[in-house]
Amino acid sequence: MSKKKLTHKTEIRVRFNDADPLAIVWHGNYVQYMEDARESFGEAYGFRYLDVHGEDYVIPLVNVNVDYKVPIRYGEKAIVEIDFIDSPAAKIIFDYRIYRSSDGLLAATGQTTQVFLHKETLELQLIIPEFYAKWKGKHLAED
Amino acid sequence: MSKKKLTHKTEIRVRFNDADPLAIVWHGNYVQYMEDARESFGEAYGFRYLDVHGEDYVIPLVNVNVDYKVPIRYGEKAIVEIDFIDSPAAKIIFDYRIYRSSDGLLAATGQTTQVFLHKETLELQLIIPEFYAKWKGKHLAED
Amino acid sequence: MSKKKLTHKTEIRVRFNDADPLAIVWHGNYVQYMEDARESFGEAYGFRYLDVHGEDYVIPLVNVNVDYKVPIRYGEKAIVEIDFIDSPAAKIIFDYRIYRSSDGLLAATGQTTQVFLHKETLELQLIIPEFYAKWKGKHLAED
Amino acid sequence: MSKKKLTHKTEIRVRFNDADPLAIVWHGNYVQYMEDARESFGEAYGFRYLDVHGEDYVIPLVNVNVDYKVPIRYGEKAIVEIDFIDSPAAKIIFDYRIYRSSDGLLAATGQTTQVFLHKETLELQLIIPEFYAKWKGKHLAED
Repeated sequence: MSKKKLTHKTEIRVRFNDADPLAIVWHGNYVQYMEDARESFGEAYGFRYLDVHGEDYVIPLVNVNVDYKVPIRYGEKAIVEIDFIDSPAAKIIFDYRIYRSSDGLLAATGQTTQVFLHKETLELQLIIPEFYAKWKGKHLAED
Repeated sequence: MSKKKLTHKTEIRVRFNDADPLAIVWHGNYVQYMEDARESFGEAYGFRYLDVHGEDYVIPLVNVNVDYKVPIRYGEKAIVEIDFIDSPAAKIIFDYRIYRSSDGLLAATGQTTQVFLHKETLELQLIIPEFYAKWKGKHLAED
Repeated sequence: MSKKKLTHKTEIRVRFNDADPLAIVWHGNYVQYMEDARESFGEAYGFRYLDVHGEDYVIPLVNVNVDYKVPIRYGEKAIVEIDFIDSPAAKIIFDYRIYRSSDGLLAATGQTTQVFLHKETLELQLIIPEFYAKWKGKHLAED
Repeated sequence: MSKKKLTHKTEIRVRFNDADPLAIVWHGNYVQYMEDARESFGEAYGFRYLDVHGEDYVIPLVNVNVDYKVPIRYGEKAIVEIDFIDSPAAKIIFDYRIYRSSDGLLAATGQTTQVFLHKETLELQLIIPEFYAKWKGKHLAED
């Protein structure tokens, strides 16, 4: 019996200004695309930044990692697949695969880790917030 | 008897990511360079964003205008000359001339207009705030 | 007998990073939203940046103007209405109205003017390029 | 006998627009600050992007990693210490320590890895380019 896998796909139009003088997406913009994918995942699964904020938490990143493989050009789209990685810790972990639309090649992979801080005190939460446990229970329940 | 002219010059390194696929500075970044020049002016004349905030005002832009003449390339610097334009209204008006460092050509001119809102109420101030009148008195006093 | 009015509407999700410490969209990002609207217009009417580039022209901005009225907050969308302004000159002129989604208020208006440069020589075109005259003929023909 | 350690320090003014609605620097901007530090290192040691380009190579990132510790606020500066990490591979590896100016606390650490592609063919270079070997010989020579 395995848990459900939470995954989501989002398409991002590459802006003219996202591409650098080499006419390819500047590497730093992948971090933005990954955030776009998180927000799109959040809309699909009721876990947007503002949803979490409404539960009195902020969820800053403690780590971001990106491996770049092939470039994405202006005129293409970036297609981001994001997987929720279940963890017993009070953390939010996502894996990302970013494809370029012209030929479907894997352009980059990435991972982010976020923690929970109380919105007012900014105190790090070492125990999983109750709303997050419930959210996981609802969405990761075994079939 | 004429008032002093308040002017300031700031040099801005063009980031790789500021240039677009044509290898020239993307037009939207000039608005950022103009803000950089305002902040640099503010440091020189005691009129930074945080100084104004400390006086309980926020100063949003109500207008920005940019005329583009020649492009600036990656590897060059943008040299921004900013002039404070005195006005009897409760407004902050600046003129900008942006030069490219390679040959000194005028790359763009611009203008911004800001108004005063009270920091808490966000109410538009129709009368010049006292601290601003004092600041102008100090810096624009006739020689 | 009046010509058709070419207009287009596009919705833009406000990114977390588009908002500044006041939690409102930073003024410079409106210039990006206006470009997004031009590209969306271009997709609808066969006049994307890459279409023009394929006709051997680049179309840099020579002017941008934005009037700010009310702020747009993170969590809202920016809804941009863009109008093509017909002109006998070898110019591309657009008007913009940017609304915030929460209450439909007009957040900003803007205008951009672009010119045609030959892609290779970068020479300014004083006469309307043939492809542009045809494009206008097709889309602005009187009813 | 140990090799010289190549290190460099650069100060970066946090732009108003670099800070997000929480009034802290948005996480994606650290990737920009790290590039700023690489360029500043490059100016100090004759290894700017344009220097490498002049040797017929482009040097895209294949990995970026950032660990976030404490936030940096608008009004502070980001102070980036960058270390060149010597490697026998045809790679360029840097370590970064990013401090906030207000109290000197370590705000983030990072690492980037770049490879060499030939500027025209975009072919990956598996052997260290001669100019890079010379540059390392000059700057890393034992005392």
